[in-house]
Amino acid sequence: MIEPFDDAYFMRKALQEAELAYAKDEIPIGAIIVVQDQIIARAHNSTELLNDVTAHAEMQAITAAANFLGGKYLNECTLYVTIEPCQMCAGALFWSQIKKIVYGARDEQRGCIAMGTTLHPKTKMSGGVLEEECSTLLKRFFVEKRNLN
Amino acid sequence: MIEPFDDAYFMRKALQEAELAYAKDEIPIGAIIVVQDQIIARAHNSTELLNDVTAHAEMQAITAAANFLGGKYLNECTLYVTIEPCQMCAGALFWSQIKKIVYGARDEQRGCIAMGTTLHPKTKMSGGVLEEECSTLLKRFFVEKRNLN
Repeated sequence: MIEPFDDAYFMRKALQEAELAYAKDEIPIGAIIVVQDQIIARAHNSTELLNDVTAHAEMQAITAAANFLGGKYLNECTLYVTIEPCQMCAGALFWSQIKKIVYGARDEQRGCIAMGTTLHPKTKMSGGVLEEECSTLLKRFFVEKRNLN
Repeated sequence: MIEPFDDAYFMRKALQEAELAYAKDEIPIGAIIVVQDQIIARAHNSTELLNDVTAHAEMQAITAAANFLGGKYLNECTLYVTIEPCQMCAGALFWSQIKKIVYGARDEQRGCIAMGTTLHPKTKMSGGVLEEECSTLLKRFFVEKRNLN
């Protein structure tokens, strides 16, 4: 059976990135950027490895996508990210003029919706794609962290 | 005469960074990060050079300071930046738990105050240091850009 290039397909790719982060003991969030059904950037959270609060999955995906495209605007691109972006990442996505943001699970505390971050007027955002899987991976990480301490 | 280590002193250093950006045809914004009167990071906007919307002065200063300190939290640090941070940079500063933000001139349109970005509860922010110089450099850049086009 041919797998369709739908939101669930691309979110699974973002989840694979989140799993790579999980394996490295990073908060497991993954992101990919897609243009015309082609994945042009894959990234996962690397704040521990890089010792850098700016190294969120989305930030690195934006940088990688711009690099691939040879231009800094992502107005033909869609970002898939396993967890709703924070205000830093939503702020970066604002500058990138990205066409679409698709997230897996909400971040009720620190997400850009709760924080009221302004998206670019051209950007559409939707969520809830593979929500359960995306949120379960994150919860599992924090439960294990707590049990270790 | 010995120059005191006051806000104006450090803002002049941030302005020097902004002037470096100006000379490279980048939007002239500069930032430095200081801990115990020592400058541990200097950066200027490099979005054109790097083709990357995330390459704001503050973002690069945060990364450089964390690198210098060997840890990702900047809770003993002060950021001096010539123009009020945008929501991306304020969002990054939130995660860094920076102690203090001092900006030169306001950004009434895209700054974190107008955008309502949440700062970390431990972070203090003040502005208006060398406001005239900081804002003049930016205005000069945009006037020249307009005249060229």
